[in-house]
Amino acid sequence: MDLRKNLVTLTTDFGTRDYFVGAMKGVMYGINPDVNIVDISHEVPSHDIWGAAYLLSNTYRYFPEYTINVVVVDPGVGSQRRPILAVTDKRYFIAPDNGVLSFIFNDPEFSRVLHINAEHYFLPVQGSTFHARDIFAPCAAWLSKGVEVDKIGDEITDYAKFSVPVSKLESGNMLTGEVLYVDKFGNSITNISYEDIKKVVEGSGYSNFNISVKEHTFNNVSPYYASINRGEPGVVVNGNGFLEIYVNQGDARRVLGLKRGEKVKLVFG
Amino acid sequence: MDLRKNLVTLTTDFGTRDYFVGAMKGVMYGINPDVNIVDISHEVPSHDIWGAAYLLSNTYRYFPEYTINVVVVDPGVGSQRRPILAVTDKRYFIAPDNGVLSFIFNDPEFSRVLHINAEHYFLPVQGSTFHARDIFAPCAAWLSKGVEVDKIGDEITDYAKFSVPVSKLESGNMLTGEVLYVDKFGNSITNISYEDIKKVVEGSGYSNFNISVKEHTFNNVSPYYASINRGEPGVVVNGNGFLEIYVNQGDARRVLGLKRGEKVKLVFG
Amino acid sequence: MDLRKNLVTLTTDFGTRDYFVGAMKGVMYGINPDVNIVDISHEVPSHDIWGAAYLLSNTYRYFPEYTINVVVVDPGVGSQRRPILAVTDKRYFIAPDNGVLSFIFNDPEFSRVLHINAEHYFLPVQGSTFHARDIFAPCAAWLSKGVEVDKIGDEITDYAKFSVPVSKLESGNMLTGEVLYVDKFGNSITNISYEDIKKVVEGSGYSNFNISVKEHTFNNVSPYYASINRGEPGVVVNGNGFLEIYVNQGDARRVLGLKRGEKVKLVFG
Repeated sequence: MDLRKNLVTLTTDFGTRDYFVGAMKGVMYGINPDVNIVDISHEVPSHDIWGAAYLLSNTYRYFPEYTINVVVVDPGVGSQRRPILAVTDKRYFIAPDNGVLSFIFNDPEFSRVLHINAEHYFLPVQGSTFHARDIFAPCAAWLSKGVEVDKIGDEITDYAKFSVPVSKLESGNMLTGEVLYVDKFGNSITNISYEDIKKVVEGSGYSNFNISVKEHTFNNVSPYYASINRGEPGVVVNGNGFLEIYVNQGDARRVLGLKRGEKVKLVFG
Repeated sequence: MDLRKNLVTLTTDFGTRDYFVGAMKGVMYGINPDVNIVDISHEVPSHDIWGAAYLLSNTYRYFPEYTINVVVVDPGVGSQRRPILAVTDKRYFIAPDNGVLSFIFNDPEFSRVLHINAEHYFLPVQGSTFHARDIFAPCAAWLSKGVEVDKIGDEITDYAKFSVPVSKLESGNMLTGEVLYVDKFGNSITNISYEDIKKVVEGSGYSNFNISVKEHTFNNVSPYYASINRGEPGVVVNGNGFLEIYVNQGDARRVLGLKRGEKVKLVFG
Repeated sequence: MDLRKNLVTLTTDFGTRDYFVGAMKGVMYGINPDVNIVDISHEVPSHDIWGAAYLLSNTYRYFPEYTINVVVVDPGVGSQRRPILAVTDKRYFIAPDNGVLSFIFNDPEFSRVLHINAEHYFLPVQGSTFHARDIFAPCAAWLSKGVEVDKIGDEITDYAKFSVPVSKLESGNMLTGEVLYVDKFGNSITNISYEDIKKVVEGSGYSNFNISVKEHTFNNVSPYYASINRGEPGVVVNGNGFLEIYVNQGDARRVLGLKRGEKVKLVFG
């Protein structure tokens, strides 16, 4: 038994007001009393596969090696969609085969995907709606207890994957991107990184630029949130190195009417 | 000390935005640093004894033996209502005596109920509003540390219990029941089970039936949520073996206007 | 290594629907796999420094000695505001220097404050928005792993502190105070304690008093919530010994229109 594998993270759209998460945890403790279950989030909006994928992409790297990540946003539960186990050099990801692991498939350390089909590790599946309890949780627990990856299922290559929108250099002096995620503060995170900007500056010699989104234009990047007046909108480089549109101590979603997919444009000059 | 007893689950209506749950956890770690506290839910609607009872009934069986379940939905806190400890063959339940453990009293392994009155295990009770911190949490922690059940209180038999609404065979070809619980997705869980239906089919020879609730009628049970179009309503057998009315990737509560207590009727023919 | 230090509590305004808390936890487990992370609350209202301070003041004493408390409500993140470590006789508090630890500075066991500046314990700081992941979480984890307090930073004395509103004896027969906090039930907690009242009664010989807030007057203190009719407003001595205005099984915030700062007056006679 590899004791380092006892960390299991949970990311779901189950909320915390029902019995779903509790039942999953019970199943896991029943199989492996030494499992260490860490809630990442159960507040992914219902059925929001993209939201769960993005969230996972911003957490898994910080966990120690051998962590097992369980992600359940699963509108296709009970259908022919398969339960899968993705493996990178030193991490594990258990999820439905619906694209929710797309960011993982892009990780340079990504190795392979297995179709989870070793039914003797499942709970007796009852009904068609709760594979999280009957399949995902027990398989994560058995894995945490030291069961080898290859005992859990068979390798597949036709797993579902969506492409992640990336920023684009439209011409020598224009970068375009979009809002990928709006967080609980209303901060709107784009896919335009500080690195993207540096490259344009280095390539073009332009050192000034403005950023526009909807009818708003920003001429500066704030060094930190509170560098502008309270209630004012601004742009900051966030903790993942991406441009983020915000309102100081306010809610940019509400104040600026931003949402996922909103186009963002940088013009250098 | 029985090390297997160190798992304590919490189910409350305290929410997670105040200090209630934090104070309970602090008290328990203070008494037993080895306790393993698992949050089931703190989002039971305020004062909703039935909601907490139903939630508990769908989680406790999945936890390992010797788990201690603490349930605090307690509008009568500070009054003469007693704190109780219910014991089944191998599980423990600490709660106010207000019916919240009614499902436990129906468990075939249910054994007995004690009035928790060993005040030397309490914190000094301050005010009248926070027995969760002053009584329930410390008693759970002492129990997890190995204190014997009989040291915690004295057996009683006049504990509060409510009856759980069950489905009814109204005639040879009609089953009636009701919505017991509406979950965060808006899925409306009834008390009519797949087993109930099988019995009628076997007894009557009828193999077709329709399901009606309010002005809606369903002629089929969906094999899984996504077997109907997105936004369409349907009925599925859920993970606990009960009929559940849902809207595919939508919210049946909102779309169909369902709520707890809504009558559901199956007519065979 | 002092094993007793492995308990770390988290109090933030990050919510649980984003990646913030998950990333913090990952960082801590990565540094100290034996850390025991306890969520106090992530539902502090966005940017509400006072709310976090009050919440912490009602939980930290219940945790065992050597517990490390991390508090992140940090509208000034990335600015010149310093990360600090406050130390009491046997407890640790990591937070931004914005007053959120004001209650701790009033604790008789309070000892000193350090400016956290030992950058080799930080993660490489990326962007300006996520010191919780890059500074607070790793420093807490290193502390939990046994790093000595004085290795984390240098003592300062000019830390931010706000004053906590206290009740006032206006004359021989009048006590005034205010609502300090409204909890999720809508219960409105004042800064007038049972002890304050006892002192007036003992000093003045008056044994009756009425309590008024906005246009409401109460002539009695309820012995417990349910001692008045459902839906009726009342006043109770809460679990921390303070007067709390409530509605039995209802929401005093909504029904009585109360909010933080509302004045409360007791007149004895």
